[in-house]
Amino acid sequence: MNYYEEAMGMKEELIHQRRDFHAHPETAWTEFRTTSIIATELEKLGYEVKMGSEVLDDSARMLVPDEKTLKQCAQRAIKEGANPVLVDRMKGGMTGCVGIMHFAKPGKTVALRFDIDSLFVAEDPAPSHRPSALGFQSCHPGLMHACGHDGHATIGLAVARLVAAHKDRMAGTLKICFQPGEEGVVGAKSMVQSGIVDDVDYFISGHIGLGDYNDGSLVCMTKGFLATDKLDAEFSGVPSHAGAEPEKGKNALLAAAQAAISLHTISRHSGGSSRINVGVLEAGTGRNVVPANGLIKFETRGETAEINDFMAKEAKRMCRAAAMLYDVDVKITPRGSATSSNSSREMGEEIYSLVEPLNVYQHVVKEQKVSGSEDCCYFMSRVQEHGGQAVYMLYGTKEAAGHHQSDFDFNEDVLPRTAATIAMLVEHFGNKEE
Amino acid sequence: MNYYEEAMGMKEELIHQRRDFHAHPETAWTEFRTTSIIATELEKLGYEVKMGSEVLDDSARMLVPDEKTLKQCAQRAIKEGANPVLVDRMKGGMTGCVGIMHFAKPGKTVALRFDIDSLFVAEDPAPSHRPSALGFQSCHPGLMHACGHDGHATIGLAVARLVAAHKDRMAGTLKICFQPGEEGVVGAKSMVQSGIVDDVDYFISGHIGLGDYNDGSLVCMTKGFLATDKLDAEFSGVPSHAGAEPEKGKNALLAAAQAAISLHTISRHSGGSSRINVGVLEAGTGRNVVPANGLIKFETRGETAEINDFMAKEAKRMCRAAAMLYDVDVKITPRGSATSSNSSREMGEEIYSLVEPLNVYQHVVKEQKVSGSEDCCYFMSRVQEHGGQAVYMLYGTKEAAGHHQSDFDFNEDVLPRTAATIAMLVEHFGNKEE
Amino acid sequence: MNYYEEAMGMKEELIHQRRDFHAHPETAWTEFRTTSIIATELEKLGYEVKMGSEVLDDSARMLVPDEKTLKQCAQRAIKEGANPVLVDRMKGGMTGCVGIMHFAKPGKTVALRFDIDSLFVAEDPAPSHRPSALGFQSCHPGLMHACGHDGHATIGLAVARLVAAHKDRMAGTLKICFQPGEEGVVGAKSMVQSGIVDDVDYFISGHIGLGDYNDGSLVCMTKGFLATDKLDAEFSGVPSHAGAEPEKGKNALLAAAQAAISLHTISRHSGGSSRINVGVLEAGTGRNVVPANGLIKFETRGETAEINDFMAKEAKRMCRAAAMLYDVDVKITPRGSATSSNSSREMGEEIYSLVEPLNVYQHVVKEQKVSGSEDCCYFMSRVQEHGGQAVYMLYGTKEAAGHHQSDFDFNEDVLPRTAATIAMLVEHFGNKEE
Amino acid sequence: MNYYEEAMGMKEELIHQRRDFHAHPETAWTEFRTTSIIATELEKLGYEVKMGSEVLDDSARMLVPDEKTLKQCAQRAIKEGANPVLVDRMKGGMTGCVGIMHFAKPGKTVALRFDIDSLFVAEDPAPSHRPSALGFQSCHPGLMHACGHDGHATIGLAVARLVAAHKDRMAGTLKICFQPGEEGVVGAKSMVQSGIVDDVDYFISGHIGLGDYNDGSLVCMTKGFLATDKLDAEFSGVPSHAGAEPEKGKNALLAAAQAAISLHTISRHSGGSSRINVGVLEAGTGRNVVPANGLIKFETRGETAEINDFMAKEAKRMCRAAAMLYDVDVKITPRGSATSSNSSREMGEEIYSLVEPLNVYQHVVKEQKVSGSEDCCYFMSRVQEHGGQAVYMLYGTKEAAGHHQSDFDFNEDVLPRTAATIAMLVEHFGNKEE
Repeated sequence: MNYYEEAMGMKEELIHQRRDFHAHPETAWTEFRTTSIIATELEKLGYEVKMGSEVLDDSARMLVPDEKTLKQCAQRAIKEGANPVLVDRMKGGMTGCVGIMHFAKPGKTVALRFDIDSLFVAEDPAPSHRPSALGFQSCHPGLMHACGHDGHATIGLAVARLVAAHKDRMAGTLKICFQPGEEGVVGAKSMVQSGIVDDVDYFISGHIGLGDYNDGSLVCMTKGFLATDKLDAEFSGVPSHAGAEPEKGKNALLAAAQAAISLHTISRHSGGSSRINVGVLEAGTGRNVVPANGLIKFETRGETAEINDFMAKEAKRMCRAAAMLYDVDVKITPRGSATSSNSSREMGEEIYSLVEPLNVYQHVVKEQKVSGSEDCCYFMSRVQEHGGQAVYMLYGTKEAAGHHQSDFDFNEDVLPRTAATIAMLVEHFGNKEE
Repeated sequence: MNYYEEAMGMKEELIHQRRDFHAHPETAWTEFRTTSIIATELEKLGYEVKMGSEVLDDSARMLVPDEKTLKQCAQRAIKEGANPVLVDRMKGGMTGCVGIMHFAKPGKTVALRFDIDSLFVAEDPAPSHRPSALGFQSCHPGLMHACGHDGHATIGLAVARLVAAHKDRMAGTLKICFQPGEEGVVGAKSMVQSGIVDDVDYFISGHIGLGDYNDGSLVCMTKGFLATDKLDAEFSGVPSHAGAEPEKGKNALLAAAQAAISLHTISRHSGGSSRINVGVLEAGTGRNVVPANGLIKFETRGETAEINDFMAKEAKRMCRAAAMLYDVDVKITPRGSATSSNSSREMGEEIYSLVEPLNVYQHVVKEQKVSGSEDCCYFMSRVQEHGGQAVYMLYGTKEAAGHHQSDFDFNEDVLPRTAATIAMLVEHFGNKEE
Repeated sequence: MNYYEEAMGMKEELIHQRRDFHAHPETAWTEFRTTSIIATELEKLGYEVKMGSEVLDDSARMLVPDEKTLKQCAQRAIKEGANPVLVDRMKGGMTGCVGIMHFAKPGKTVALRFDIDSLFVAEDPAPSHRPSALGFQSCHPGLMHACGHDGHATIGLAVARLVAAHKDRMAGTLKICFQPGEEGVVGAKSMVQSGIVDDVDYFISGHIGLGDYNDGSLVCMTKGFLATDKLDAEFSGVPSHAGAEPEKGKNALLAAAQAAISLHTISRHSGGSSRINVGVLEAGTGRNVVPANGLIKFETRGETAEINDFMAKEAKRMCRAAAMLYDVDVKITPRGSATSSNSSREMGEEIYSLVEPLNVYQHVVKEQKVSGSEDCCYFMSRVQEHGGQAVYMLYGTKEAAGHHQSDFDFNEDVLPRTAATIAMLVEHFGNKEE
Repeated sequence: MNYYEEAMGMKEELIHQRRDFHAHPETAWTEFRTTSIIATELEKLGYEVKMGSEVLDDSARMLVPDEKTLKQCAQRAIKEGANPVLVDRMKGGMTGCVGIMHFAKPGKTVALRFDIDSLFVAEDPAPSHRPSALGFQSCHPGLMHACGHDGHATIGLAVARLVAAHKDRMAGTLKICFQPGEEGVVGAKSMVQSGIVDDVDYFISGHIGLGDYNDGSLVCMTKGFLATDKLDAEFSGVPSHAGAEPEKGKNALLAAAQAAISLHTISRHSGGSSRINVGVLEAGTGRNVVPANGLIKFETRGETAEINDFMAKEAKRMCRAAAMLYDVDVKITPRGSATSSNSSREMGEEIYSLVEPLNVYQHVVKEQKVSGSEDCCYFMSRVQEHGGQAVYMLYGTKEAAGHHQSDFDFNEDVLPRTAATIAMLVEHFGNKEE
């Protein structure tokens, strides 16, 4: 399996690349520097690079920062080495890109997806935390790659390189999608709605860690991602002095509190799992004022898109009814969403039968159930709806701490191993007959 | 004071009359027998008797029983001696009547109001309860004069008799209103809206008992009756099996429960006292069915009509919002209402200065604060709005138990004493100059 | 297959038996006549009959009617032909019985369970309803066999007869449990806790209808019954006049309403399905009284006993907290419970492989998922915990209406067919070697 | 009236003094500089000055800032001219002081009370705001004298000066209390509980503005201050991932929301006005986390101390019950309190009869109803309980904006006029016989 040998030969470079990404984390719609590096490298390797509105439906982007923040981040990226021309192509936070290569041999269209954004987490400065000890910790206060997307971006570029190096073996077309804004599930919908994966036959994505085994394991397919909606409801009423004329007030705090409670009374669904959580409630300004403002931040989830739709529809009506209870106004704003999706069984089993005999992994797991939500499901659903197959894999690796924690880190051995596996799958599925 | 002597001479007759009323209690809009007796007596005394739509605005009647009940009660009344011709004039439950007498001397228009209905209370059969011991207990199971309206009707007829006997002393016009349906405050609005008291200069009503003193006391005016609305809200949803498909149900129980709680969160009012009470909640049919029905019975009150209107408006909107919370329907039905009113100070003080020196009462109290609601306030407000004066008095008497209790009874000495006082006041105010 | 032929030959008798049961429905703990008939027949067939505290743990019985009701039902049963001696053995509503037969050949202990109680449903008198048309409708107003337990009891006796007729073929021991009070899941726990099935190797129960196919189908095993608790919470406070001194009241209506709402906010469980339903809420006596009484009837369910325990524990604490909110008392009373259970796969598959080749059924279904709760799960869990195997089958039959409806009826062909199948299984499993 | 002439002669000094206080606002328990200036001046005038635990009961202080803040504020005060020795006597934020003078002539003990703290309000920098235009705006960012306590402190010192200048006319004893922390009603209770006014015969306090008339008016007594409690309830639960294992969380947000709603359902009180307001609710950290923290800030009020006690007791129990509902902990912390109090009628009428004939004011108003709460009521109640009399007056002045607003300012003519009136009253009441 020369992919693995080749990839092992690139290991130092991959580690260097990952640590550079790690030191320069960028959150959703501000991945200017990250995208600039990726796009530059893809072009160098001979890929056609699509960016901006070619790969993003602007109207489907969620939680986009304000103009001022976008500008500051763009300037920061340039200061840190991003190509100003490319940054300009990402104006308005239209970050992310897709590298495309058509191979000589006719064949299938294969798509890969790597998410590239970081989190709003302040990195642990303790010397016990390897990035801090070795000096590649985040140089952006309050931001951190605490979910391994630095690794994802690195693997994506490594696959691009391996494939380009062996393009004579390949068939069909390869599309490598570098998606912005997976955290908070705000980005995938926008990229998918651009139509970029509408012609895809085989789709592969995945995540570092999360598997039941770690180092040296591969999960060939997952199932169980929950569809989700992230929503804010802002209630606005009328203040009044609580002692002097309470009856003049329109109480937005009580509306928000009632909405929070009512939302948790939405019926269980016989069709499968559902979730509701009001994670934040902020209301009122002073103890002696009938509160005129109230905000709840909540999320619904469902085992299927239908169940999540049921939850979200109930929740929205309840927010409006809670506003009516206290005669206040309410504004409901979407803050993220993901659909549900399961891996295509046939493709997953095929991957298992390909990888298992290689003796590259200590554990090759055919399938694992996951919980939580992933906006990669938009990609998978779209591909499956159009007749293609899609898998979401788990790339086992030993982790220093749980995902989203300030001392998260992972064993970088996962980088070359995963890149080699994916390159091999690109070759395999591109060449598939029928 | 010949009124008092004359009245004392009628005492045995008055007691007999009151006990007959007591034995034949009739609830709101079914006072066929009671009205028949009153109207017959009034005509005998030379009064013009107005009935039915002459003295009732049909559209303002509340909680009218269904046709079948009305018919049964009418037949019961005839069986118990009511005049079928008069009962026919009360068709549809248009009970109550007004006796009018124009006197030779020009003068003021004076109106009196006596309420005549009974309660849905089952009378105490114990021999310790005087009506049961003496055999004049209710012969209508589940109904009882437990609030003294049997006494009110008796006093009203006694006044009619005293006045008629001395019509030469009288001036102006006298209107004696016998009002149906005071319990639940469902009747006064209808009688007032007929216009029957629109030309009244002096208005007198009152209640047996309730004063701080009892036997031998008179309160000349009261203040503090609260305006009130009685409302039902019926929620109707969609049932479903709570285990098999809970999400298909639309939960009317939760809507009703939420309405009950939300109503109690209506803001206090800086303008004065308010009240809210959800007195009854009934919802659901079976433990394992998502409940499709829910009923709340509630009442609002306010120190002023404005405050009560605020309460009722908030409550209605909240009921509709609670329905919206659970996507169910709601029907809100008025079940009674009373406005607020205070006695006219000038008239009350004049009564005090007339009665106090007589040495008829041990205590003559100028004014007392009351709580609760009385639909007599509709009469008082209407008279006051048209430039007249109105008082609500309390006729002190020793009571065997609290009002609305199954062993309620009172010292019948109050009957002749009160009748004499009112007759004297009719003479006085009818003859008032200016 | 002589069991089927023999059973078909008994068909008219079975129909007659079932219709007699149907005409005399008896609800939980009042199955005096039903039990009397069953016990008499079992003795006649040579079974040892255990009754009363031999087969019921009195302390685990739920929703037992009061003494007076029990006496009336016992008298009714005697009037309708029950054996007074047997009725006396059921004193206090200790209904139900178990027939036991030890066979000559050593072998396994096999247990069967048939539930025998009726529902509080008023039977449809319309001629379109076959029982009413043919004159075997319920002669007990408000009670009806609307769930097929008349059929279950009939099948149980038919199996007893078939087995007794062929006791030479049989091995080991047979226990036929006729369980009272399955509706509301109030009876199984009590019978199981008597220890009667603690030594059982193979356990079979099931239900008429409910399968995806009807006439001529058999489901060999089911899975998915939810564990459940049925609970009542009664809140008691202090009444007061809502206008005069509302602050003196302790509001049990608001406590009950709050409990209802709060219960529906219990968290979803990541371990599997859960349910909560407050099916009934009744509170308050009069509109103008701060309500001093409040009752909620609710049920929890869980895919596993652990999940249901979580739900029930949360619910109970919330009821107590809701009482504390309004400073009222609360009494929580269990009204039924069932555990969850799945059929034993090995035994189910064995049944499938036995029945499928017989060509007796049009459809033999290996396994079907069910919802809802069944207190048979207590039997199944107990047997499985003690190392035995257990299945719950579905006996397909065409039904005239949904279960628990007033025009429920079923195709009586199911009676002999099911009896024959079960008799065959008794022979098979009793004779099983190791 | 030489007090008025003398006071007018001091006008420029008073304005200067007030503007110095205005420029250096200090909030509750940090009035180090303000107290230092007052104490220094009082000593200079010959008053005995009591400070620290002589005039404050430490245990009754509420909302005391943390040590660090106290130290920073003390250092700021010293930097701005406070006497370090005096600041040291206020260690721990024991601010405020009382000046006492015993006069030669025997007589009554008269006490005055002036509150000296500022608000957490950021002052309006616009030139349309006079303090900003003239350069005496707050030099402490975020703090402002927006309620006139700079004027109160100035008047207090002016009275001290006028009285000292005429001590030969005076009789008995004068105590001038400079109270810290009136805003949020956190300070009076502590000063009163030190016992400093336990021997007082006549007590006078009041407020700039608030009257129905402004310039040139005086309200001799007020009534209607509501008793109040300010409370925080902090709920703490257990976080968990809302998607992965929601059942592991203990939801403090729902507890806080429920408490907010339940508090508003506390019954109205037939004894008089009450209020409840949850002014602030803050809960939760992230959308997808079951919230483990929840805070509500609320206040109760009552027309009498008894009614407020009823409200506060209900509210505290409800907070604990809401915590129990969701199995979380709660900590309830007092954040301020005031009792209710009305002025002593006899003393108020005496003041009216003294001031009205002077022709110093355009309007002398005998009595005015106020709303809201004032912790001066603790002083008044204590004096009245010990047999003394107490009034709360309103010193009319034209105001630039409502109290507590960032552009609040007042016509400084009120300073000398009020000082003269109070000095005159000190003379009058100290010399009163009997």
